[in-house]
Amino acid sequence: MTTPPPNTVIAELAEALRRKKARQRHYRGIDYHHFLDDWHHIPRGTAVFGDTVVYGYPHIGRVLALEAGLKAHFQAPFWAEEKINGFNVRIVRIGDRILALTRGGFVCPFTTDRLPDLMPLTPFDRHPELVVCAEVAGPDNPYLESSPPFIDRDVRLFVFDLMETNRAAFLPYRDKQALIERFRLPAVPCYGYFRVDEVERIRRLMLELHRDWREGLVFKEDSPRDHRAKYVTGNSNIDDLRAAADNLLELPPEYFTNRLLRLILFIEENGLGLTVDLERLLGGVLLGGLHQAVTKYQQEHRVYTTFRCRFRERENAELLLDHLKRASRHVQIRPRTLAREDGRWLLEFDRIYPALTGMLGDLLAGRMIYD
Amino acid sequence: MTTPPPNTVIAELAEALRRKKARQRHYRGIDYHHFLDDWHHIPRGTAVFGDTVVYGYPHIGRVLALEAGLKAHFQAPFWAEEKINGFNVRIVRIGDRILALTRGGFVCPFTTDRLPDLMPLTPFDRHPELVVCAEVAGPDNPYLESSPPFIDRDVRLFVFDLMETNRAAFLPYRDKQALIERFRLPAVPCYGYFRVDEVERIRRLMLELHRDWREGLVFKEDSPRDHRAKYVTGNSNIDDLRAAADNLLELPPEYFTNRLLRLILFIEENGLGLTVDLERLLGGVLLGGLHQAVTKYQQEHRVYTTFRCRFRERENAELLLDHLKRASRHVQIRPRTLAREDGRWLLEFDRIYPALTGMLGDLLAGRMIYD
Repeated sequence: MTTPPPNTVIAELAEALRRKKARQRHYRGIDYHHFLDDWHHIPRGTAVFGDTVVYGYPHIGRVLALEAGLKAHFQAPFWAEEKINGFNVRIVRIGDRILALTRGGFVCPFTTDRLPDLMPLTPFDRHPELVVCAEVAGPDNPYLESSPPFIDRDVRLFVFDLMETNRAAFLPYRDKQALIERFRLPAVPCYGYFRVDEVERIRRLMLELHRDWREGLVFKEDSPRDHRAKYVTGNSNIDDLRAAADNLLELPPEYFTNRLLRLILFIEENGLGLTVDLERLLGGVLLGGLHQAVTKYQQEHRVYTTFRCRFRERENAELLLDHLKRASRHVQIRPRTLAREDGRWLLEFDRIYPALTGMLGDLLAGRMIYD
Repeated sequence: MTTPPPNTVIAELAEALRRKKARQRHYRGIDYHHFLDDWHHIPRGTAVFGDTVVYGYPHIGRVLALEAGLKAHFQAPFWAEEKINGFNVRIVRIGDRILALTRGGFVCPFTTDRLPDLMPLTPFDRHPELVVCAEVAGPDNPYLESSPPFIDRDVRLFVFDLMETNRAAFLPYRDKQALIERFRLPAVPCYGYFRVDEVERIRRLMLELHRDWREGLVFKEDSPRDHRAKYVTGNSNIDDLRAAADNLLELPPEYFTNRLLRLILFIEENGLGLTVDLERLLGGVLLGGLHQAVTKYQQEHRVYTTFRCRFRERENAELLLDHLKRASRHVQIRPRTLAREDGRWLLEFDRIYPALTGMLGDLLAGRMIYD
């Protein structure tokens, strides 16, 4: 089950397009294709620009039991990097342009626009084949309601892996670190190098991250197979539930039960116990978000969340809006403002959640339901 | 869309059996059939004993907004009866035997066994065509984890409707009340007769029921169409979530979100506000049940709930177990004890929840999941 080489990916493209497993896209003069699903061992999000293949970022498995998970999956020491609560991008140079691709392989007009603000672009001069894998996070982003507690404005970028075009593999960890240092790339915090039997050291670290409302850790084995796993803090689940409470009907139904299970297993394994504070916190995020949704519906007859993000170029804001409108099957996008502010274009738009909006409309009008 | 007459129901039976919409059953010398789904306007749970048809208990619609719901659906004054948190049965005389049918139309060996303890059976001497519709509720029942707060042992029976065999309609309300009084049948509490504009009176009543942790009300219009609707208290949703926390993976995924929505709409409409107590309560039932499930798994490698119920005849206990084993597709039934106690046969058995059992086994062993 190895990922096929670039020429095979390119050769498969026509068939993938016919089967709707890939799509053609266009971004400001650049034509490209991307794979919408894992297909014939080509990872979802793989993008093809002419004869350049940018492989999709692979899935990283999650363990819900820290100690058992590390023991089951790691055969060598590993690094523990912080998992940042944002969205995954791959940054790549195509001709003389530097583009940011989303996890799905779509050129993100927002991240692409803001790249000069987010990281030095000099590495691409020396290494034009470089693919920088990073998380973009912060309160003012167009995709996510939640953001790390330590970013109070706009977004920041955190590099966690390097790849190369036309190669489905990460650079070795030490090579990655050397390049990050040489080019002073903003990187995710690395909390150290651990042996599998140092679970207690990792547990203490996890508890600190939990108390700081950070998301968790990604473990990367120091071995040629470069094995990986992620483990998140209890509080990151509370954050997820908070972010989801007002659009709960649009989410996959197991969203809630999964987070509850992760939370209880974290509490259990890390000896935190069920405290009144935790109970209240959980009840509060679930009820608070729904209460807000009901109030919003009563005032404006719509349940929505307002997003904001900043651009250097107005055209990119418009391209983002176009993309969101086309891509948001279930959710409706309503632009609010696009105006100059502090040398940037500030875009504000709403995501209107039609399932909850419709259901609240029906229920508050007294509709009878049969269950 | 009227329910077909008895001869049509009987004529449709062969086709329904072929299509697996009906099944043949046997209970201690009695052969019968019942409909597994609504089919050709024959309600689910309709049972056929020879030429006697016992129609299924119809669905009652639920409103999640009290005032809007009453205004939208009621055109005449109505009675408000308490909704009891138990399981629905129809009690009927077939030949010289008196049987209790579940909502699905299956003869319930437990309720049938206990009928002499639960209600006077004299009405059937005078009215052999009577179908008594009732809720059976209490902590020691074989089907439900939750029970009304005012029953601390065994089960009780509460009549809420009367029907007749071979007729798909309820007796008029006043006729029902007269028969209940004449035969001293145990009935659900009736809280009075209300006009649609007396919402505030009903709201005060609902808040009392809510504070007493009772389930809610069923409204029955004083009109030939006998229109009905149900509305439940906020706390009944907390009860539901408490009962579900340890088998959350076996329940339909919208179980949680529905209850949360009902709860928040109850709070909102009845001006209760989001209190710290409520937040804590909700968080507590969700985390408490799951925590218990994890602890149970760690001790016994199984997540289960123990049920107990009492029988007059040992054979009925065995028939119930056989039925539960055959009927519980997802859940495993494990008998614990069947022994004499205080003149009854006390049966104890476990419902083992395989989905949560399996998932906790995998997760606690460190299984990696990809989501």
